[in-house]
Amino acid sequence: MSTKLDLIALDADDTLWENQHFYDSTEEDFHSLLADYADPDHLRERLLAAERKNLRLYGYGFKGFILSMIETAIDVTDGRIPTSEIQKIIERGHDLMQHPVTLIDGVEDTLKKLADQHRLVLVTKGDLFDQERKIAQSGLADLFDRIEIVSEKTPDTYRRIFESMNTSTTKCLMAGNSLKSDVLPVLELGSWGVFVPHNRTWIAEHADEPTDHPRFHTLDQLVELPDLIPQL
Amino acid sequence: MSTKLDLIALDADDTLWENQHFYDSTEEDFHSLLADYADPDHLRERLLAAERKNLRLYGYGFKGFILSMIETAIDVTDGRIPTSEIQKIIERGHDLMQHPVTLIDGVEDTLKKLADQHRLVLVTKGDLFDQERKIAQSGLADLFDRIEIVSEKTPDTYRRIFESMNTSTTKCLMAGNSLKSDVLPVLELGSWGVFVPHNRTWIAEHADEPTDHPRFHTLDQLVELPDLIPQL
Repeated sequence: MSTKLDLIALDADDTLWENQHFYDSTEEDFHSLLADYADPDHLRERLLAAERKNLRLYGYGFKGFILSMIETAIDVTDGRIPTSEIQKIIERGHDLMQHPVTLIDGVEDTLKKLADQHRLVLVTKGDLFDQERKIAQSGLADLFDRIEIVSEKTPDTYRRIFESMNTSTTKCLMAGNSLKSDVLPVLELGSWGVFVPHNRTWIAEHADEPTDHPRFHTLDQLVELPDLIPQL
Repeated sequence: MSTKLDLIALDADDTLWENQHFYDSTEEDFHSLLADYADPDHLRERLLAAERKNLRLYGYGFKGFILSMIETAIDVTDGRIPTSEIQKIIERGHDLMQHPVTLIDGVEDTLKKLADQHRLVLVTKGDLFDQERKIAQSGLADLFDRIEIVSEKTPDTYRRIFESMNTSTTKCLMAGNSLKSDVLPVLELGSWGVFVPHNRTWIAEHADEPTDHPRFHTLDQLVELPDLIPQL
């Protein structure tokens, strides 16, 4: 057991369970619905622009995503899209928010191993209602000492959580699939940041990898985390 | 100072600041937009039905409200509503989510008096992103020992919060404008429940007043709370 480490924080979407996959599949349906009006590449670009613009109004989560799709559909068709298609976008959004929670391979055993030796905290951003649903359905809630659903993952967000759990930021580690939200903010605090890339990560979460940072690590899969810890 | 009381919990929307007023005003605009298709009473009924149905999918908050308005607009017009009107509903929703935070008269002084003698916790339900914006803009955050944004206010919600603040539920008081969400759940735990009615409370929050309950009190305004406490 590493005595250097007191607390392990973990991201949820695309770190513990699949998420972006369901958004991508909804977006493919959106492209099909609008196939008569715009080509997929153009639509992808316009939807991403709408999502980025709306983040400051809606925050993260599926309801903002549905609203951005509706706005984009009206916009790219100059209002020619029939309302029946808008109804379909809403219905497709309802499917999205009821998707099953699919754990990533090996996650449950990995969390049990980690929880044997360390306190765990789940730190996830997005829609409160949707995240609670997914946490409940995942069956993983009891493995965590604390669950924090936050609107944004900044260094201050992590500092507040780590301090409220009575530990020093230098004894904390955060692992997740987003360099921007899971890794860079905790490196700034002096914590360990572990990047576990996922093949589907929303483009707005991309950032450059830090170079030669002594507290930065990359793993192919979360199952490798228990073996990394004694080497820290 | 009442020695019986350890912790005071307070609701936010329509207890500390105006909220329903902004929703009502958005709904009036929605009636105007659809004036050629449906009369206001019918629309009110249909929108409320859509909101209730969608609560289990969207949870509380303005994004679900916008989506329910769009769905209702398509529905009551049998799809004849032009997309330009849907765009207006979205724009009106953007105004709603940027409305100024208007404190209810006397709230700031009342909270300062209460905070002098007791620990305070804010317990609000709704959209995480929107509630954080309003809390920040209210300028009241520093008066609270803890801020809890929750997806639903059940007895379990309150028990978890009170226990995590290391107090007994019988030494806690919750005040707010919703009998259903702020008062009845805490009475069930053995805490004090103080109902401070607001002239605009969403109809889905209505419930019957408890009769002859020893821990139930009604106040005309929150400013009366500091004088009530020594009498508990």
